[in-house]
Amino acid sequence: MTPTPPTDATADDRDSETAADTDDHLIPRLGLPRRDFIKAGAAVGAMGTLAGCTGLLDNNGDGVASASDVDASVPPGELDEYYAFLSGGHSGDVRVYGVPSMRQIMRIPVFNYESARGYGHDDETREMLESAGDYTWGDAHHPRVSQTDNDYDGRWVFINDKANGRMARINLKYFETDAIVDIPNTQGVHGACARLPDTDLIFGVGEYRVPIPNDGRNLDDPDAYESVLTAIEPESMNVVWQVRVDGNLDNGDGGKNGRWFFATDYNSDGAVTESEMARPDTDYLKAFDTIAIEEAVENGEYEEINGVPVVDGTTESPLNQGDRPLVHYVDVPKSPHGVSVTPDGTYAIVSGKLDPTCTVVEIDRFDEVDDPNDVIVGQPLVGGGPLHTAYDGRGHAYTTLFVDSQVVKWDIEAAVDAERRSEDPIIEKIDVHYNPGHLIAAESYTADPQGDWLISLNKLSKDRFLPVGPVHPENDQLIYIGDDDAGMQLVKDTPAYPEPHDASMVHRSKIDPEPVYDPEDLETEYVDVDDTEVIREDGRVHIKMTSQRNEFGFHDVTVQEGDEVTITTTNIETTSDLLHSLAIPQYDINVKLAPQETREVTFTADKPGVYWMYCAYFCSALHLEMRSRLLVEPEE
Amino acid sequence: MTPTPPTDATADDRDSETAADTDDHLIPRLGLPRRDFIKAGAAVGAMGTLAGCTGLLDNNGDGVASASDVDASVPPGELDEYYAFLSGGHSGDVRVYGVPSMRQIMRIPVFNYESARGYGHDDETREMLESAGDYTWGDAHHPRVSQTDNDYDGRWVFINDKANGRMARINLKYFETDAIVDIPNTQGVHGACARLPDTDLIFGVGEYRVPIPNDGRNLDDPDAYESVLTAIEPESMNVVWQVRVDGNLDNGDGGKNGRWFFATDYNSDGAVTESEMARPDTDYLKAFDTIAIEEAVENGEYEEINGVPVVDGTTESPLNQGDRPLVHYVDVPKSPHGVSVTPDGTYAIVSGKLDPTCTVVEIDRFDEVDDPNDVIVGQPLVGGGPLHTAYDGRGHAYTTLFVDSQVVKWDIEAAVDAERRSEDPIIEKIDVHYNPGHLIAAESYTADPQGDWLISLNKLSKDRFLPVGPVHPENDQLIYIGDDDAGMQLVKDTPAYPEPHDASMVHRSKIDPEPVYDPEDLETEYVDVDDTEVIREDGRVHIKMTSQRNEFGFHDVTVQEGDEVTITTTNIETTSDLLHSLAIPQYDINVKLAPQETREVTFTADKPGVYWMYCAYFCSALHLEMRSRLLVEPEE
Repeated sequence: MTPTPPTDATADDRDSETAADTDDHLIPRLGLPRRDFIKAGAAVGAMGTLAGCTGLLDNNGDGVASASDVDASVPPGELDEYYAFLSGGHSGDVRVYGVPSMRQIMRIPVFNYESARGYGHDDETREMLESAGDYTWGDAHHPRVSQTDNDYDGRWVFINDKANGRMARINLKYFETDAIVDIPNTQGVHGACARLPDTDLIFGVGEYRVPIPNDGRNLDDPDAYESVLTAIEPESMNVVWQVRVDGNLDNGDGGKNGRWFFATDYNSDGAVTESEMARPDTDYLKAFDTIAIEEAVENGEYEEINGVPVVDGTTESPLNQGDRPLVHYVDVPKSPHGVSVTPDGTYAIVSGKLDPTCTVVEIDRFDEVDDPNDVIVGQPLVGGGPLHTAYDGRGHAYTTLFVDSQVVKWDIEAAVDAERRSEDPIIEKIDVHYNPGHLIAAESYTADPQGDWLISLNKLSKDRFLPVGPVHPENDQLIYIGDDDAGMQLVKDTPAYPEPHDASMVHRSKIDPEPVYDPEDLETEYVDVDDTEVIREDGRVHIKMTSQRNEFGFHDVTVQEGDEVTITTTNIETTSDLLHSLAIPQYDINVKLAPQETREVTFTADKPGVYWMYCAYFCSALHLEMRSRLLVEPEE
Repeated sequence: MTPTPPTDATADDRDSETAADTDDHLIPRLGLPRRDFIKAGAAVGAMGTLAGCTGLLDNNGDGVASASDVDASVPPGELDEYYAFLSGGHSGDVRVYGVPSMRQIMRIPVFNYESARGYGHDDETREMLESAGDYTWGDAHHPRVSQTDNDYDGRWVFINDKANGRMARINLKYFETDAIVDIPNTQGVHGACARLPDTDLIFGVGEYRVPIPNDGRNLDDPDAYESVLTAIEPESMNVVWQVRVDGNLDNGDGGKNGRWFFATDYNSDGAVTESEMARPDTDYLKAFDTIAIEEAVENGEYEEINGVPVVDGTTESPLNQGDRPLVHYVDVPKSPHGVSVTPDGTYAIVSGKLDPTCTVVEIDRFDEVDDPNDVIVGQPLVGGGPLHTAYDGRGHAYTTLFVDSQVVKWDIEAAVDAERRSEDPIIEKIDVHYNPGHLIAAESYTADPQGDWLISLNKLSKDRFLPVGPVHPENDQLIYIGDDDAGMQLVKDTPAYPEPHDASMVHRSKIDPEPVYDPEDLETEYVDVDDTEVIREDGRVHIKMTSQRNEFGFHDVTVQEGDEVTITTTNIETTSDLLHSLAIPQYDINVKLAPQETREVTFTADKPGVYWMYCAYFCSALHLEMRSRLLVEPEE
């Protein structure tokens, strides 16, 4: 369907419609909004990092909340309050934003080769990428930050590759990818969600149904296709078990108490065409009892396929009968998409996608009911194309409406109290531009969302930015949600390179990266000034050298055409932000060298001639002069 | 040397010191600053695209001009006034920013493979990259936008690859790279500057001295190394001639009248180590008389090397004697770096790098003087580490000071009137953070700079943004230069992924891209619904299909293991921003398909099994269901 333009109704209109219904029961129960001091006019002093424009200014009355209503400015030299980690979709990277400035501070290559960071250019990172399937790209969807006791612990970000069935780990000590696992027995792996409270398991949800193993058997027998849920141990990044299910798996989220994992299913019939997949009026929410699954694995009740214990979680499985099924199948309308667990761990909320409702499931009821459908305790009528839901910690849910191009704010307890398919729980809607997919609120995935900022990741931007040809940026819109009286306020449009898919937002106090490498953390041995040497043995040349302002350890090195050359280089600088690189013209090499970092690159000297090895990081006034000659003598 | 921290002096201090000297002669001659209506308090109505915060607010008095002094806000839904094209340095891409918001609107892959845009993934773009040297990265330095009659014409952006000696062309109709040429006989190609007024030649300046040809001869005989200037015809992207010179070549800029091209030389001795290169007290500005060079080529006075006519422009060349030398060698201090021609075409201004001066050369004097050094008419003492100079169209030059971490504003005519090495022409300095390389002012490279915005591309950011580990972003700082009375005002810090090297800034009125492809502009034949077919002939399978919401032209296609498969896909959508892609799991393929775009991809079906071809651009509520099966039957 075509993007739906914003309606004429404005956020202000909606406030006036709904304020009466909501304020009287919201304010007493939830207290005052936490972050209303952030509003213009009261910012000075209260929050230094958010100081700036201090004049109280009028709403510009154009139906879009003006940026001047909420002070989201971050003056030169001041820092943002939050890190946002946005996946890069099929660009394969992860982007780090500052919030509320929405400035992109860093890219982290994950499934893509990237030369400025030398990612996939030095031996170690290239081997990591090659050993994990040797793909040049990935489809990075769901960045999730590791937690301890249901709060962010600043250790890792996990991110899935939907295209090739991989899971990667980003180390937040250095903001770099340090592990990638190629997951067997699955295709279209979605989600990188964790078992909480302590992120002791990472889950990859298999979206596409394929034969297992997918080696040519049952090629055109869709009934024999299967989807699996994959559990990965985060320290080792080893796949520890899988569960096969009926239908398929889409998005997922973990419960807060170490037991449950939830995933949606939009293809309960196991169909192979769009029209067939969209036919059923209900599909499934699947609730995985990970404790029961682990017991089944311990009891040997699995089939080993491609080295992985695969447990049978299909509806007909003997393990799924009785009073402790591995997987509970709950009927929810219609081609459900997103699922997320409320901060207090009480509910899992499922978005209908092809049904204008969200479905509220009370998690504790799984142990109490005979009919799994009796876990459903609410089903508010939210609007067209509900996809994903985030939380503010004040009892509200925020759901993206892809078809209506809106974000709807609704009251969770009111939805439990209300009739099914009622609009009563709806507090307000705000237009976004256009067609939102995921959204993220500050620390929404933890037990304590911060309740101030929300980002709507809109898939289309249309005419919101200067035109740049057929490929448009997406539009990540910053919305202030800290004032329940004023309602949601659109603050910023932010263009984004295709295709940010999902995000996590973490307070800056919870991440503490190192500006300089600890050589102990690196695989390759440190090369100090005294260690500089060239080792030659039949056809192999190993050059060990340093880099520092403004020279490499050797002014020139001579090798023979055909030699296999390994260059190990240490940046012996100790000053933060003083990077060098080792770039070799026409040899397709650029190795990044941060302070105290050692990297190694191996290549065959197959082109005779003079090649000026140079530093590609602008490191000093004599940066251009920081180069050495690689002299490749021709074969006789 | 280590980055120099900002001094305690503030922009305000400097204003009060210099205002008396400057205002009385600036105001009468240059008139009032053009864009002072942009200042807060007068923005409403005067400039819709720059409306927003309208309260007149105090300077926060912290020595950094407050963002509230100048209104650089671009409220949600409003457009920026300028496009800025920033090179990506050794990331190999080009980034498109909006100014004054400093939002990154788009990335354009040039020398890097990039999957979201399918760049290097479809047959056509992969062949372009492979035929231009088959490198996976490049070092993109100097984006220059094509001009007609010394004004931007919105046709192309040219960008060099310093690492591998290539030049690329970006087509601004579609904002995509459409040609790359691998330049022979040169290494470390710097600059992508043009002969003006009409960009009828593009120049690549050879920074690194190497043997010509570089095939193993004269390996360790630096006296036999040479640098060349390369001229490229922009329509065909063919190399048309080269000039060999003494010493080396660094940055360059074209004159405005179709004759002159200027390049600096920081290695006049032909040295091979940093200390030797830095030794001479003077090196060269080289002025190339391109008309005289073209006459020499027409007269056959060249040596053909690797298919290119190479003219001898060394000091001893017969062609360089007499009254019309091909290349004029001017002595300038010391390891000079940047050179840029003033908007009126009168002067070429060279930055000293290792000398605290800029050197002002009067271009017309080359025809009048016997001693080429007599073209020097001014040499202001600007400060530590001058690198590059931009212009505001009001008679001022703005020069980055790498060592002092400042931008200095000085008066060009005052520098001509003043004693050599005098500070009198200096109007003010502003601290930047930290260590600026290039800088760019709005339309500074044209005959009519706009004089409002300036971006300082600072190489180090240190602690200006949330910490993200050892790899820091750079810091592109937006400075308002539209008010000579108020002085330069720092408006925004903008983090940038390493390593923006240079930029061009173009008013939005001069670029008019197409949101939808014209099939006539594409190499591959359009596939309409009626053209959908599968053609099989011994071991080759050609699949011709469409893509549209929400399906591909086939629900499934069966091929044999080992088949060479070509898939031609047309996105038959006509709606702007409605992209699809063709992603194939585990086959490492993602082909971007914008509206009305046809792309082709060829691969060997070497893995048996079921592979779900899917669309990686979120295109509708049934986007996830937009997929088809590639069935690869195993060999018997």
